Amino acid sequence: MTCDARRTAVRNTLARNRAQALLVSDPVNVRYLTGFESSNAFLLIATEGAALFTDFRYRDAAEELARRQGLETVIITKGLARAVAGWCRAHGIRRAAFEDHHLTVASFRLLRTKARGIAWLPAAVPVASIRAVKDAAELRAIRRAVTVAEDAFRSIPPRAWVGLTELEAAEMLEERMRAAARRHGWHADRAFSSIVAAGANASMPHHTPSAARIRAGTLLKIDWGARVDGYCSDITRTLYLGRPDRRFKSIYATVLEAQRAAIKAVKPGVRLKDVDAAARTVIARAGHGECFGHGTGHGIGMQVHEGIAVNARSGDEAKPGMVFTIEPGIYVPGWGGIRVEDMVVVTRTGVRVLTRLAK
Amino acid sequence: MTCDARRTAVRNTLARNRAQALLVSDPVNVRYLTGFESSNAFLLIATEGAALFTDFRYRDAAEELARRQGLETVIITKGLARAVAGWCRAHGIRRAAFEDHHLTVASFRLLRTKARGIAWLPAAVPVASIRAVKDAAELRAIRRAVTVAEDAFRSIPPRAWVGLTELEAAEMLEERMRAAARRHGWHADRAFSSIVAAGANASMPHHTPSAARIRAGTLLKIDWGARVDGYCSDITRTLYLGRPDRRFKSIYATVLEAQRAAIKAVKPGVRLKDVDAAARTVIARAGHGECFGHGTGHGIGMQVHEGIAVNARSGDEAKPGMVFTIEPGIYVPGWGGIRVEDMVVVTRTGVRVLTRLAK
Repeated sequence: MTCDARRTAVRNTLARNRAQALLVSDPVNVRYLTGFESSNAFLLIATEGAALFTDFRYRDAAEELARRQGLETVIITKGLARAVAGWCRAHGIRRAAFEDHHLTVASFRLLRTKARGIAWLPAAVPVASIRAVKDAAELRAIRRAVTVAEDAFRSIPPRAWVGLTELEAAEMLEERMRAAARRHGWHADRAFSSIVAAGANASMPHHTPSAARIRAGTLLKIDWGARVDGYCSDITRTLYLGRPDRRFKSIYATVLEAQRAAIKAVKPGVRLKDVDAAARTVIARAGHGECFGHGTGHGIGMQVHEGIAVNARSGDEAKPGMVFTIEPGIYVPGWGGIRVEDMVVVTRTGVRVLTRLAK
Repeated sequence: MTCDARRTAVRNTLARNRAQALLVSDPVNVRYLTGFESSNAFLLIATEGAALFTDFRYRDAAEELARRQGLETVIITKGLARAVAGWCRAHGIRRAAFEDHHLTVASFRLLRTKARGIAWLPAAVPVASIRAVKDAAELRAIRRAVTVAEDAFRSIPPRAWVGLTELEAAEMLEERMRAAARRHGWHADRAFSSIVAAGANASMPHHTPSAARIRAGTLLKIDWGARVDGYCSDITRTLYLGRPDRRFKSIYATVLEAQRAAIKAVKPGVRLKDVDAAARTVIARAGHGECFGHGTGHGIGMQVHEGIAVNARSGDEAKPGMVFTIEPGIYVPGWGGIRVEDMVVVTRTGVRVLTRLAK
């Protein structure tokens, strides 16, 4: 889907709000809809025409891109609100939607004050729902991000973790991702700060890597991902550094069974809260219900966490092209925690697992 | 200043709003006020007592930290709004301030709906104004971030840039920062995506590094920074790879003169818009006024851009302990651009430049 087609998809949602335009303030959405990357850019999509708002620092790049895509460019000099108000007045726009999940209360107040005469309507996250379904080019980028993360992990034999601090281990894994990308002729960065949690630290689902040393004879939970071509991967593996004891094996087996049950539940039309329930039931039945306090997964794409949720309160439904994680876990205070996370894409008939690392 | 002292400073601002509490939603402010780092944490500071709100994934870490600091912990299960409402009711809070520069319109609506009976007041950025003035520990971290960025840059002789693509150059610089930190026994990451702009690409103040090759006989603008101990540095240098021509020398001299004028203007009590004017006047007098379209600088600390602004519309005033950048530039479409950026700290009597790299 070209950026132009994406903007058309947004336009088709305007009628729902009886709005003549949508002000896109989330910079990730601006990038999705224009390809323009900047720390200060806004897009106004009207029923006819669209304008990219940015400041002097990005002027040349914005004008070149706008020319290619048939957009207008507005250089902000006295604040966004005035610039937007001016454009709306010039184009007869009196009802406009805004991204209420992104715009801050203070920015919205400015907009209302400076752009009098325009009715501002909260938009029901139209861009997020378009972004939730990935096209072929997006899936290609996501696959690259998965490949880079997997290559990096595979390049590290289990014994190589022993003796490093959690921080050093995280840094090594991130360097391996950059190196893996270079070998493919791509460019990668980490998608988020890697989580490396050794032993009892792994009982915290989102432990911040510390100066604690990784020892043999303990478990090691690693949650990492790459960003390639603007798209993310997100994987978790839990290892036992040595011969695992019975408790590790038993909890690991439960987590894996929960994950398989959730993956098996995915197909077009299924409610994502039912996918969550599939994993949760397995863990509860094994007596660990209290130890799985987070959702089973989340949408992923340009952001590590985006759009849809796979949890008990989710109102989302699986559609072909949706990409999300499946990552149940069991966390036992004082002992440690086990999580296994893969990424899946919904196909026309079911589901495909994007990650291929051994579990 | 301990986190406890910072929370006391926040408490002292509550009276201004006639509020009984402040809900801190900006995660950077939560970290500043508690040391707690998480993707989902909120802090409610009441005239007496304070509570840290987070979810299951961070429970153990939150409870340990809260115990040390005498905070309550609340684990969010049915959304932040309900959790906050419950705590406020239990503590008799009926007037609470919120961070209107951070909270989104959608989150605020939830808060108003779920926490009925509480009057929510936009807070006049109290935490930002406390954060603007750095204490000794913060200055130490900033100095480390400067050292790491400078060590990395110095380790690359000018001829080593030639032949690399802009992207490769950015990656090399970032790897050098991590290595420099390791040599000091610190841990560093880049503070932001480095800008490397060769030749005419440098006419864009915020160019995104591309696959363009860096050639000898052109200018090279590099804008980079490190994050160490949670604090950032931000430096720009513009080189000429070879023997600079007269035009480069003349524009460079103007930028440097503008920067010196701005730095010289800094002392306690001075309005930051006058610091901006000092740089702007030099550039305008040289006939390049149209080519300097951005502000002269910005506050920096836990974030690369935070709090105060050094531009023509700034309402801020210099206070001892404030740290900001001074970075005038001249950008000529088709030719290139020159920017020189240093970091300064306001002292009790004037200013100290934190960066030491040759210009």
